[in-house]
Amino acid sequence: MQVTQYQMARHPVGPPTTDDFAAAPVDLGSRPASAVRVKLNALSLDPYIRMRMAGRYIADNLKPGDPITSEAICTVIESNTSALPPGSTVATMVPWQAVADVDPARCRPVNLGDMPVRYGLGVLGMPGLTAYAGVTRLLKPGPDDVIVVSAASGPVGATVGQLCKAAGARVIGIAGGAEKCAWVKDVARFDDCIDYRQEDLATGLARLCPEGPTGYFDNVGGQMLRTVLGKLRPGGRIVLCGIIADYNEPEVAAGPTSMEIMGARAHIMGLIVFDHEDLRPEWERVGAEMIRAGTLVTREEIVSGLAAAPAAFARLMRGENQGKVLVEV
Amino acid sequence: MQVTQYQMARHPVGPPTTDDFAAAPVDLGSRPASAVRVKLNALSLDPYIRMRMAGRYIADNLKPGDPITSEAICTVIESNTSALPPGSTVATMVPWQAVADVDPARCRPVNLGDMPVRYGLGVLGMPGLTAYAGVTRLLKPGPDDVIVVSAASGPVGATVGQLCKAAGARVIGIAGGAEKCAWVKDVARFDDCIDYRQEDLATGLARLCPEGPTGYFDNVGGQMLRTVLGKLRPGGRIVLCGIIADYNEPEVAAGPTSMEIMGARAHIMGLIVFDHEDLRPEWERVGAEMIRAGTLVTREEIVSGLAAAPAAFARLMRGENQGKVLVEV
Repeated sequence: MQVTQYQMARHPVGPPTTDDFAAAPVDLGSRPASAVRVKLNALSLDPYIRMRMAGRYIADNLKPGDPITSEAICTVIESNTSALPPGSTVATMVPWQAVADVDPARCRPVNLGDMPVRYGLGVLGMPGLTAYAGVTRLLKPGPDDVIVVSAASGPVGATVGQLCKAAGARVIGIAGGAEKCAWVKDVARFDDCIDYRQEDLATGLARLCPEGPTGYFDNVGGQMLRTVLGKLRPGGRIVLCGIIADYNEPEVAAGPTSMEIMGARAHIMGLIVFDHEDLRPEWERVGAEMIRAGTLVTREEIVSGLAAAPAAFARLMRGENQGKVLVEV
Repeated sequence: MQVTQYQMARHPVGPPTTDDFAAAPVDLGSRPASAVRVKLNALSLDPYIRMRMAGRYIADNLKPGDPITSEAICTVIESNTSALPPGSTVATMVPWQAVADVDPARCRPVNLGDMPVRYGLGVLGMPGLTAYAGVTRLLKPGPDDVIVVSAASGPVGATVGQLCKAAGARVIGIAGGAEKCAWVKDVARFDDCIDYRQEDLATGLARLCPEGPTGYFDNVGGQMLRTVLGKLRPGGRIVLCGIIADYNEPEVAAGPTSMEIMGARAHIMGLIVFDHEDLRPEWERVGAEMIRAGTLVTREEIVSGLAAAPAAFARLMRGENQGKVLVEV
């Protein structure tokens, strides 16, 4: 059986383009007895893939010719594994190809009840779990807090802000462009949103929060992190979750200096979602309840067909997406 | 009344030398009614003074011709303030000169009972309080911890390590030179001490603590911070207290990157002792009890006369001092 596989043609320089990807036919052969064969339904595009393309991620870095891999919602079509009979819906990491053989131990059955199964890649999946773990285990907001969230219209940021609102905090988003900011304020109901393309961030923070934020959930890093740190109320908390600022840059941005951190008396906490898998069942329940109650909204940008994935990923890395980017296969 | 005042002659380049200081006669005149006049007994030399000489401290930065100021133990010799009659012993910030007029509101009466009054500048003063606040409010060590402490033979580091030992933790110091390391292990009773001049720090940490430290009290910053962070056990804590690495450098060292902090799942906390003044009475009591019980030792390097202060400060900034540096006046 032949499938078309989307590979990394070369390491991107700056924002990725479709030329950084190549489509190649690969022969799937017969399924190894130890694997299950799955058909992709929906593929997740996430910023961390850019770091793997640069060879700078904490795992699974790519070299030219390697298949790009993503988390996907799949249907099992062939299996010797009684726990995963044909017809099962699972989430697993797969190469960008319509059918793949995967390790059953790395397949996670997905059952979201009345929720759309594709939410298992977004608001009820890895991005949502990232937000839930970061908010409940690290940031721990309450009614006295003013929390700033960067990349506020993305699936992590939007969920973080709504969870902080639910905890009683005042929430200020940061996003790029009027359209994203309008969604963050009007639909996701953050208290405010700073359009960093229109207003100097330090000025915006001073305008909206003269006493400084008490917390910052950082999906961006780089200069944005240092600017918010410089405005943080003494003793404020910062959760480091993402580094969009670095993704298209040849050099990793320097972190805040010791003097900046000491001056702010900041508490800075690094978050990796893999550590918080134990929270997933709780989040699937809590998140679904919030969605049903209307206190948690999500935004998706869905494109059709794997051939559209490279261009959709390039859009995501230029910040032109609106919400969680999925590829329907 | 004329006194000799020691001033900053110029901003030091690299490690300070005595040429960066100048002695100038100043006429004290008669005491302003709102001030108290004090005679210096013991003057504290501390690394943060180097940052003020560079113009990079959080407050009280110096320009050429400014008097150097330090905390000192003084005796009140003239006063209109009933709470500070002549003969009172106080700690206050003073210019480097034998007699000075100071704001009584900024004088702190010192009464350490059976302890030497000069301890009010060291183990029972600002450095000791820094250690106590950092350990009890931020680092919070326990029996399951392996704590690394840099500048381990200094008055902050030595106290931190002994407090962590008292809390049941295993403690590994970092110091420069065999003599300092021997004191840290044999007298201050740390479990181990790495001589960073003799052994690559990452190698030393891997040798003494293959699973990585769970905590780091950082008095140094710069590359040492990044090296320990790279060895930290996931979820470990780091207290940022000092940046000796920066003191003699023209540029402030870049901090750890977001990826380094996230990769370590580190919790990094900035410490400024000014925030913890409320702990001082408790520390004066607890620290004195530990000293009497023999579970807290301190080391002092005492020089005589203000004229010796510039050279002693230069020695301190070259790391050639042995313990807390004081000038007896």
